[in-house]
Formats: sequence, structure tokens, C-alpha cells
Amino acid sequence: MSDKNLKDILRKVNQFKITDNTDIVELINSLKDTGFNAKRLALACEIYKEMINTLGCVKFFGLAGALIPAGLQRVVYDFINEGYIDVLVTTGANLTHDLAEALGFQHLQGDFDPNGLDDKYLHREEINRIYDVFMPNKVYEGIEDFVSKLEIPDIQMSVSSFLKFVGKQLPKNSYSVLRACYDKDIPIFCPAFTDSGLAMQLGFHNQKLNLNHFKDMLEMVNIAWDAKLAGMCIIGGGVPKNFIMQSLQFCPNSATYAIQITMDRPESGGLSGASLREAISWGKINEKAKYSTIISDATIALPIILWFLKKTHK
Amino acid sequence: MSDKNLKDILRKVNQFKITDNTDIVELINSLKDTGFNAKRLALACEIYKEMINTLGCVKFFGLAGALIPAGLQRVVYDFINEGYIDVLVTTGANLTHDLAEALGFQHLQGDFDPNGLDDKYLHREEINRIYDVFMPNKVYEGIEDFVSKLEIPDIQMSVSSFLKFVGKQLPKNSYSVLRACYDKDIPIFCPAFTDSGLAMQLGFHNQKLNLNHFKDMLEMVNIAWDAKLAGMCIIGGGVPKNFIMQSLQFCPNSATYAIQITMDRPESGGLSGASLREAISWGKINEKAKYSTIISDATIALPIILWFLKKTHK
Amino acid sequence: MSDKNLKDILRKVNQFKITDNTDIVELINSLKDTGFNAKRLALACEIYKEMINTLGCVKFFGLAGALIPAGLQRVVYDFINEGYIDVLVTTGANLTHDLAEALGFQHLQGDFDPNGLDDKYLHREEINRIYDVFMPNKVYEGIEDFVSKLEIPDIQMSVSSFLKFVGKQLPKNSYSVLRACYDKDIPIFCPAFTDSGLAMQLGFHNQKLNLNHFKDMLEMVNIAWDAKLAGMCIIGGGVPKNFIMQSLQFCPNSATYAIQITMDRPESGGLSGASLREAISWGKINEKAKYSTIISDATIALPIILWFLKKTHK
Amino acid sequence: MSDKNLKDILRKVNQFKITDNTDIVELINSLKDTGFNAKRLALACEIYKEMINTLGCVKFFGLAGALIPAGLQRVVYDFINEGYIDVLVTTGANLTHDLAEALGFQHLQGDFDPNGLDDKYLHREEINRIYDVFMPNKVYEGIEDFVSKLEIPDIQMSVSSFLKFVGKQLPKNSYSVLRACYDKDIPIFCPAFTDSGLAMQLGFHNQKLNLNHFKDMLEMVNIAWDAKLAGMCIIGGGVPKNFIMQSLQFCPNSATYAIQITMDRPESGGLSGASLREAISWGKINEKAKYSTIISDATIALPIILWFLKKTHK
Repeated sequence: MSDKNLKDILRKVNQFKITDNTDIVELINSLKDTGFNAKRLALACEIYKEMINTLGCVKFFGLAGALIPAGLQRVVYDFINEGYIDVLVTTGANLTHDLAEALGFQHLQGDFDPNGLDDKYLHREEINRIYDVFMPNKVYEGIEDFVSKLEIPDIQMSVSSFLKFVGKQLPKNSYSVLRACYDKDIPIFCPAFTDSGLAMQLGFHNQKLNLNHFKDMLEMVNIAWDAKLAGMCIIGGGVPKNFIMQSLQFCPNSATYAIQITMDRPESGGLSGASLREAISWGKINEKAKYSTIISDATIALPIILWFLKKTHK
Repeated sequence: MSDKNLKDILRKVNQFKITDNTDIVELINSLKDTGFNAKRLALACEIYKEMINTLGCVKFFGLAGALIPAGLQRVVYDFINEGYIDVLVTTGANLTHDLAEALGFQHLQGDFDPNGLDDKYLHREEINRIYDVFMPNKVYEGIEDFVSKLEIPDIQMSVSSFLKFVGKQLPKNSYSVLRACYDKDIPIFCPAFTDSGLAMQLGFHNQKLNLNHFKDMLEMVNIAWDAKLAGMCIIGGGVPKNFIMQSLQFCPNSATYAIQITMDRPESGGLSGASLREAISWGKINEKAKYSTIISDATIALPIILWFLKKTHK
Repeated sequence: MSDKNLKDILRKVNQFKITDNTDIVELINSLKDTGFNAKRLALACEIYKEMINTLGCVKFFGLAGALIPAGLQRVVYDFINEGYIDVLVTTGANLTHDLAEALGFQHLQGDFDPNGLDDKYLHREEINRIYDVFMPNKVYEGIEDFVSKLEIPDIQMSVSSFLKFVGKQLPKNSYSVLRACYDKDIPIFCPAFTDSGLAMQLGFHNQKLNLNHFKDMLEMVNIAWDAKLAGMCIIGGGVPKNFIMQSLQFCPNSATYAIQITMDRPESGGLSGASLREAISWGKINEKAKYSTIISDATIALPIILWFLKKTHK
Repeated sequence: MSDKNLKDILRKVNQFKITDNTDIVELINSLKDTGFNAKRLALACEIYKEMINTLGCVKFFGLAGALIPAGLQRVVYDFINEGYIDVLVTTGANLTHDLAEALGFQHLQGDFDPNGLDDKYLHREEINRIYDVFMPNKVYEGIEDFVSKLEIPDIQMSVSSFLKFVGKQLPKNSYSVLRACYDKDIPIFCPAFTDSGLAMQLGFHNQKLNLNHFKDMLEMVNIAWDAKLAGMCIIGGGVPKNFIMQSLQFCPNSATYAIQITMDRPESGGLSGASLREAISWGKINEKAKYSTIISDATIALPIILWFLKKTHK
């Protein structure tokens, strides 16, 4: 590496300023030339924007973590509704919470130290804790009621087909992720579906149900296979990250854009915290890809990215 | 809380000493009266020991993370072989790596900074990185070869039945987790099985395969339902943690013992990092349960726990 | 706790929406009724706002971490200039980097994977790395030149008096933290001053220098002692956090407002990651205090807080 | 990089086994050829062993974090007493807690969830919390009593000289770090000394005290300057890490061995979590150095390293 190269590679840090006229676009543009996670957040915004603007790019979105109970249902809804997602991979828990909100139930939150409420007391009151967010047990009764009335068209349909079927039953004017994906014809994959409250209710009521998980797997590979260009945004790692990644190995060019927002780190070897760079060795991300990992709670980073995208993408 | 109570609750910190005669049992006993994660590790050892010694306690073991590529296959093998596990819940990735080792393939490691090896170069050399551990692509050919010869008895069998069938095909004298569970008649549940290299090969070779994930889910609930006493050891969170937890809600007494080893934390609301105390609100762990979370890489903590258990449990 | 209480404590999660009209104030207000770190960020904004609006509240600001090299010099400058800080406690490193920028030197950043630049190569090129931000060695020559010309009025003055003296020498129109504090007559405490490049240059040039650290300590206690109301904002923990905390034990009411932004966690017992709640036991924060810890990189959270404060505080 | 190189660099992962005959030396030797933090722990053991066995290597030990309250006083004592440390750099808090134990006071611990004890109640009972370890306020009275009787020989002596003087006053048969360093003539540097309970008591009783921090700084540089070979072990980062690092820039060969044990990570740019590799760019660690960072609570990793060293170093 010559001196000339070094000058090209290293640029002045931008000592940016917040002014009366600062808006989200200007802030993100300012952060691009800073350091640490502020810069990574700005790069992620840039990459997502380019991913949206690139014709034919298939945008995979992996969603783990309890974002819907935490109040981000409409943020995820907007990603779908605005066309920022082509394929959604998520957890059964997220779908269960989404369904609960769609059915008119609400998650609760408390305005105090998370240790203030005794978990034994909550148990007796039949209120379940997700850190500082809470879900009453009676929500499950509502889900059970909904599930018991479902007339499942095919007990061996794929999970994604089943989720589409569920989405169709939900109120049109809700901010449900399930409904929005149905409306937009966006497939939802949920490889660990049976690891959820929704699937448990389904299983209890339909002892012969055998939703075909392998069909989903093959469909997902086909989508990747057919994608001329691919990009991904990974929230929180987990099964959604791996499922997208394993499929993109079959994409002719693998991923050209990649974003992940996580609190996990690489050093203990789990996939959730693995660097995106590592995915190049596997052929999940291509050598020329643009990628950015933000070490941040997604409840902070994801609304900012959405805000930036809505302002820049018309 | 009266003064008397405070004296009972707070005890002198043990300023322990490492001597020529220190062995693992003495060390762990010393750490019980210290603080921070050293104490939590000692408590976890104690809890696991009690769990083993309690007649009729069903021991659930959740295994996420890349422990087998990192050299802990025989550690997990010993947990099974020694009778420390009654039900194993794990990821498809772990099973894929386990199968690879059972078929005679090896994982590799490098003795240098993880950044030293360029991922683009690795890609061209067809070597996949898992932080500082590596798996050549040719391993997949071996797995494909194995999979292509499998005569699956029932394409709608449960995943756990299928994994038992796979275990039976593997060499008896290996340290394979799949084989050990077959030999010991310990069920392996893998709710996100299709999220793995092994399942992909299976799906490619058997387009009609539809392993019944719901059957697994119901079986797991039945095991929990029938357990008079239950305990769990969770490595790394993820789907295995949630799957065990959701089932234990149906155990009459929920869990009486709980250990988790993870680098994840509660603050961003994901289940992997959720406190065990929180599980009391859900009825997954009972109010009188003994529990301990160790914030540690499992590659450090798990061998220590095994070492302690093998020395104390005869 | 009665049912009535539970209803008061637990409120509906706000499924907020980003619209065309969203501004930073509305966003933060929306996040107040969500969960996880988004909520904590919103609470921190609220608390800081109240702290500013409370007459007579002395606002302590603890600044650890490399914010100035990362491009946040003007953000910190604005906190000072807008009157959001009454007492600054920071590290010698931050002051060294602030001085460098004030003298016209620049920090550099690279737009690629942090592993892309070999550290051995950087060493030969005399460029020092701070993760993805860089400082050429020649900056030290500039600092040395500045230091060699200083005519220190009293070799036994306190560190804070010395820093005021330094601030006075710096260009008026800079965004230097040192200069801004001089202009606003805000004391800067730096308990570990000799742990910095600036102090090393000073020591080499003034072998008899003995800046009085104990004087600073007593002055800081006096400020706390005299404060009718006190609040603190802690960035990153470290010595600044502890120094503010130990002084507030002597504040008649201890702190009434407390914010911390950190990536550290409580479980391994270090003060940087300690919960703010724990500070109540020590009498550093009072029983009725409002407090919020945000688990976030400060490069993301701090500009957002500033943005909110500038918009709401006129 | 040729194929031949790759074979040299990547070696088989050791699927190690815990047997009846496993001792700490065998375990560590097994872990050397594994992955993730288990491997890093084994490498750290190896590096420390080599550092001890290398004639003329000056061993710097940086100690941040609350290890003494957590029960590791005798572990640190042994590192000193066995000759594994030549220069100690630590925090004022550690020295305060060390003094407390040396004066016969005790730290307390509770055997329950850290959230079980209300901090407001603790405040009223005058018991201070350090996560799950506790220190009664009356300890400060004991320290005050000790401090008030000290006849400080020179109010402008260096902090390290003062700490030597304190060590001399302490009981010979204690496991005090201060006393052990006095006995072994090992300097203790404490750059942020005034950031501690001990220094506060000193300052209150000796209003004219002006311990010379710059003298320490210059002495530390001289020690580094004179070191033909240097190594370091960093516990927890903070000021001790930076102070050792800044001095080693003046060591002709900079550090040849480096170990750090921390829970901090590099991504948010703070020095505590900075990679050791990064220190090469600064000339703090040399290009041929052996180094290992263990992401672990030091309460787990440090006793293991000591155990290994005591068994292998006779």
C-alpha cells in the first residue's frame, strides 16, 4: 500500500453540527464521515437507499427480537408498505405478537426500573414480562379463539402459504405485518414456526397439521436462485439471519448489499454476532458487496433508518 | 426487611486461594461465596449437580452456538453419555457439524488474529469461516453423499424420529451427539431444522420430504406435561431456549432448576438475553426455582461445569 | 400491590408511526411509551430537558470514550455553549484530541471494514488507529510545540485551573471544548490527567510540574456540597463517572437527575456498567431521582439528545 | 497466500475430552487448539507463562474493576507474591477495598438475584452495593481512622511512594496488595488516585497534600524506557490500560507480550475494548508480539490463569 493510497483511503473526520435546520437526511449525511457506530448507521442508511433504488434487487429482511411488543409494529409495517422488503423471514414470536395486536389486544409497558415489578406477582396476575414490556395471558385466549375458527385449506401447505392465509383473515385497516404482507404479496418465511405460541395453539387444535417446512426452504432457495441482485437487512440475528444467508449461497451473485443491526458480537462464535465480512468466505455475500453492521438496539436504529428512507425515497 | 434478615442474607465474601492442592471441586466451592460471574458459575455447578441427583428430574438441554466446530463435541457427548441430559434441543447447524465430524471430516482452526485471513481468499479456496474456526466446502460433499444414501423410512415422520434414524447410521465409536442420543434413547428436538445445511441436502434429494415439526412440538409438550420435576441448561439462547421454555409452561410445576450460559443481555429485549427471573412471570420457571445465568462464552464455562460434575457425580 | 396499582403502572405500548411530518421532538415523544432502549433514550431526553429547566440544578457531565476523534467535538461544544453543562469531568485523551483539533490538526477516518488497514503498516506510516478513526503521529509534534511555549503561571495549580489557562490560549472561533469551557467559565476536571498524551508532553517539558490533583478533588466536593439540586449525564463510564458519583455523595440531596449512555453492563461488577439504581444505595443518587441508562454507542445517542434539547429548549 | 501456507496456518480443531485425570495444565493445553474464547484463554496462559520465563521481561499488570470486593484479593496477592508482576497499575477503588480488607473489614455477598435487595433499603441501612457484593459504610470510618493517624513523610511525594508508605503500615500477615507490593518492592501506580474513597479521606485530613502525579508518570516512562523486554496483562481496561500503553510507547521494543481480559468490545471506540492489534499502530505493542484478548469476566478467567501458572511455573 503506497502513501498515495493511504491519502485516498483516509479522509478527514467530519466534526458535524446540529443546527436549527438539521433534518434526518442532513444528520445521516453528516454521520457518514465520522466514526464508530454513528458512521455505521449512516452507511446502513446509504446502503438501504441504494438497495431500494437498484432495479431488480431482491430485498430480504430478517426480523428476530421482540420489536412488535416494543412498539415497532408500524415501523415494520411501513418497511413492507413502502416496498422496502421483498421477502420477510421472522420468528413465530413476532407473528404471535403481530396477530395479538391485529386482533385488538395490546402490549403494555411500565415507566419504571425493570426490576420494580416482581415476577412472582406478575405470574399470579397472569401478566408475562418481556423486559419492560408486558403481555397479559388473556391475549392467548384471543389467539386461541382466532385459531379455533380457522379453516385451514391444506394441512400440508407450506408455512409461508399458511401465513398468507392467516394474513387474509386479518382486518384490512390494521398495521399488522401479516396483513400487510398478504396485501403486498410478500412471502413470510418462519423456519422455526413451531417455536411459538401461535403454532402451539394451532397444533393443539389440529393434531394432524403438518405444515411443510421443507417446501418453504426450497421456495426460499428458488427465490435466491432467481434473484439477479440481492440485498439483506438483518435485525438481531437468530434463525432469520441464517435462513437468509444459507439461501443466498444459491443466489448466482450472492448478496450485493447487507445490513445488520444487532447487540451481538463475533468473539464467541455464534452466527447472530458474526461479522458480515465472514459471510464472504461462505459465498453468502459477494466480494464487492457494500455492507454495514450497526451495534445498536434495533428499537433505536430501525426507526432512524425508516425515517431517512421515507425522506429520501419518493 | 429487618436487620436480622440482612445479616442472614449478606455473608462474608470468601477471599479464596489457589493452592498446590486446588482441584476443580474445591475451586468451585470457593467461588460460591464470591461475586459477579465467578459466583454465578459456581451456583450453576451446584444447581446442575442437584438437578442430576434429584430423582425424576427431567433435564432439558438447549444448545445454540457453534460449540461443535469449536472443539466441544466430546464435552456435549459426555453430558449425554453421563446421563446429564434427558432431552436435547439444538440447531440444525450443530447437527450438521456433528454429522461432519462423525463422518470423519474435521474442523480447522488458525493460531492467529481472526483478521489475518482474508475472507475473499478463503472464499476462493472454498473454506468457510466461523470466527476463528473453519470448515472446508468439501465437507458438504461428504454430507451430500451420506444424505443421498439415506433410505428415509417415513417422509412424514417427526424431526426427532428422523434424527434418531440418522444417529443409528453413524459409527458406534464416534463422539457424535446424534449417535450418543440414539444410543441413550434421548430425543433431539430441532425446531428450525430446515435452517441448516443438513436439511438443505435432504430437501434437495427428497423433494417430497415433509418431516412433521408439529409432532415434535406436541411430543415436547407431552414430555414437559409428564415431568414431575424439570430443570434446564440453556447454552446461548436462540430457538432452543424458547422451545424449552414454551414447553415448560405446560409442565405442572414448570422448571425447578435453570442454568443459562450466554453472552447476551436483557436490555434490548431479545429472548436469548432475557433473565431467568423473567421466566417466572410466564410460568416457565417456578417461584421456588434455583437458577443462575453465567455471562460467559460457553467454550469456557461448559467444560468447567462438566469437569465439576464428573468429579462430584459418581 | 393491588390490581388498581398494576393498571396505573402498566400502560399501553405506543405503536408509533414515522410520517412526513415527524420531527425529532415528536419522535422522542412517541418513543417514551415504547420499550427497551428506544424508551430509555426518550426518557433520557425528557430527564435532560427537565434538568435544564430546573432552576439551580447543577449539571455534571462525565465524558469518557473517544467522542472527539469520532466527530462529536461540536456536539460536546454545543452542550457547553447552550448551557447544558455546568461541570465537565473528562479524560486526558479527550482533552488531547480536543487540543489537536483546536490547533488545526484533523482526525481521519476510512470508509471500509476496520480490518482492511494493517496495523503494522499504519505503524510504519506513523498513523495511530482508534478503531476506524486515525490520528497521525505528527499531531503530537504540534501538541509538543504548543506545550513547549506555555508559560505555566503556577506549577502547583490545580488541574482544572491549568485547563482553564490552556483554554484561554486557544483560538476563540474554534469549537474546542477547552476554549468553550474557558469562555463559559465552566470547570473541567480531569482526575487521571497524567494518563494522557498532553500531560506527557507537559511533564517532559516541565520536570518540576506538580499540578495539584487534590485541590481539584476538594473543589469538586465543594461544588457538590453547595448544589441545592444536582443532575448528571454520564457518557461511557470510567473515571469521570466515578469522580462525579463520589462527589455527589457530599451533595445534601445527592443527584435528582441521572442519565448514562454506555455499552457496558452490570454483570461483571465494574463501575462503568453499574446500574444507576445501584447508586441509590451509596447515596449518590437520591431515592426520588429520575434516571435512565441507554445501552448505546454515544455517537448515536448523544447527537439525538442534543437535537431534541436544541429543539425543545429555547 | 499459497495453498501450502493455508495448510500451515489452519490446523485440526482438537475435540478434547475431560477425563478423570484432567488437571488444569492438561485442560489449558487442550484448549489451545480449539476456538473462540476457550482458545484465547489457553493462549493467554501460554503467553503469561512465556513472559514469566523470559529473563529480563518487565511484566506490567493493569487492574481495573472490582476484583478485590469480589473475593480475588488473594488471587492478585499471589500474582505479586509469585513474582508474576513487576509493575502494578490500578484504580483508587481497588486500593480502597484492599485497605479495607487489610484493616480487618469484610466485603459481603448475598446468595440471591441481584435485584432482590432494594437499593433504597440498603441506603437506609448504610450498605453500599457493587452489583451482588456489598460494603457497609462503617468501613469508611475504619479507613478514616487509619488515614487520620498517618504521618505522611512528604506532602509532595509521588503517589507510588505514598502507596509504598501505606503498604508498610499494614499487617505483614495480611493478603493485602498494598502490603505485598511493599514487601516485594513492586511499584504501584494509580494515575486517578484522587478518584477514590481513600484519596478523599486523605484530602479531607490533609488540605495541603499535593502528591505528585507527574513524578509517577515520568517514573513509569523511565521503567518502560529501561525495559529490554516488556509484557503486560490488562484486567478490564480503563486508566490502568491506557497508562501502561502510553508508557510502553517509550519502551525501545514496546511490548512483546500482551494479554487482556475484558467484557468490553472495540466497536464503540473506547480504549477499554480496543483490540490489542490496534496497539501495534501506536507502537505500544511490537509487530512480533504474542497477544491474546479474552472476552470474559476476570473473576472467571484470572483464577484459571493463576492456577495454570502456579502448576507450570516452579
